Amino acid sequence: MSTLFVCITCRRDGDAPAGPRAGLRLRAALEREAGDLEIVGVECLSNCQRGCSAAVSAAGKWTYIIGHLDPERHVADMAAFARLHRGSADGLTVWRERPEHIRKNTIARVPPMPVTKELS
Amino acid sequence: MSTLFVCITCRRDGDAPAGPRAGLRLRAALEREAGDLEIVGVECLSNCQRGCSAAVSAAGKWTYIIGHLDPERHVADMAAFARLHRGSADGLTVWRERPEHIRKNTIARVPPMPVTKELS
Repeated sequence: MSTLFVCITCRRDGDAPAGPRAGLRLRAALEREAGDLEIVGVECLSNCQRGCSAAVSAAGKWTYIIGHLDPERHVADMAAFARLHRGSADGLTVWRERPEHIRKNTIARVPPMPVTKELS
Repeated sequence: MSTLFVCITCRRDGDAPAGPRAGLRLRAALEREAGDLEIVGVECLSNCQRGCSAAVSAAGKWTYIIGHLDPERHVADMAAFARLHRGSADGLTVWRERPEHIRKNTIARVPPMPVTKELS
């Protein structure tokens, strides 16, 4: 199982002053449209200048951080990428299979930590 | 123990055509000046537009990705931040204690994965 971390603090130009900020809208849209994913809201992924932001992680897999996510346009792309990550052995998904927005807005990736020894 | 991942693929303006690229120089300088740290070279942290790049990770701690590292100027700052991370319980180090370059060039951070149950 991969975890999809969503920054709920991100704002975007055009956020309604009285409405929920973009990060909250992104999390809500993902929860609505991708209920099969494990979605965790985070107060700041420190990618503030390139938001909205989300990251996909799993034990033993590479972590990917994605930026410039528009909650009105990129929910399906982000969900598709999280599912690719979930289905991969090491988090290194096939480049061509990743949605274009994901390919063009990958902010960083980090290797997995060494897996701890299995107990026999 | 925290792991300091260093992108060895990053180039920077001014790299000598015949010399090692900036990422390799950054790793070499860190290994020379911070032998107490666990340093792991990585072929691409996907932060190419904002290199040189490094990330600090540890099981159960937040991961931080740092960018715009100059191997001639920021080795001490990066090593200091990795040591702060190593000494912290959760990877969330005190803002004021972080070197200025680290504060201003944090590219992203990602929460730890849930720690697996301890076996009793």
